[in-house]
Amino acid sequence: MSDASGSSGAPAEPAFAGGLLPAVAQDVETGEILMLAWMNEESWRETLASGRACYYSRSRQRLWRKGEESGHVQEVAEIRLDCDRDTILLKVRQIGGAACHLGYRSCFFRQADEGRLEIVEKRIFDPDQVYVGKK
Amino acid sequence: MSDASGSSGAPAEPAFAGGLLPAVAQDVETGEILMLAWMNEESWRETLASGRACYYSRSRQRLWRKGEESGHVQEVAEIRLDCDRDTILLKVRQIGGAACHLGYRSCFFRQADEGRLEIVEKRIFDPDQVYVGKK
Repeated sequence: MSDASGSSGAPAEPAFAGGLLPAVAQDVETGEILMLAWMNEESWRETLASGRACYYSRSRQRLWRKGEESGHVQEVAEIRLDCDRDTILLKVRQIGGAACHLGYRSCFFRQADEGRLEIVEKRIFDPDQVYVGKK
Repeated sequence: MSDASGSSGAPAEPAFAGGLLPAVAQDVETGEILMLAWMNEESWRETLASGRACYYSRSRQRLWRKGEESGHVQEVAEIRLDCDRDTILLKVRQIGGAACHLGYRSCFFRQADEGRLEIVEKRIFDPDQVYVGKK
């Protein structure tokens, strides 16, 4: 079978083609989706080597070792690739309890409902305390 | 508070800026991540209006009403936006049990482990039966 048929044993490489691919971080225990970020090949290789999520920051245009400022690193428990190998799923343990730079466990803390965004999660930390002097 | 601080009541609009944004579909019951696809503003509006996931197919360059060929539509139970409003999370009920065109419940049916991709889920349907005459 070809890789397109979904066979086991295919190369475990995302199809970067020199660009960026979306990477979803999911809590390995609860199944909660914590965030979506981007990876290039270099960040992928560092993630594999270090066992911690490393993304590529589009705004800073450099590798982004998740938690490098906040200490809230993501330990990678499992990696999945999708059928087209163009999306990465990291099942992680979120150290510090919060993935979002705004202090929420998940970046998806707001629900779109009847044309408005409503916060549906509790803030875990105050960003002004965690990122003091780092802005 | 500004929208950037994560306040409630912000406009419930993703920041499309004329382009595409990633949209993650998650099973509303199990928390399983089913797939990642892309949305433009038109597909977003159709999703809101119809209550069914409508994406934008980059390969076909047109709206992609999920399930339009297979019948495996996604009923949208809840919509979340992330802190930057540039990723959409759809919590869905996956009709037919399978989101992946290869016949698996999730497109993330393969695990990357020690340099190889291994199938870790069971196939639910045979694509050759579901998409007969539609290729």
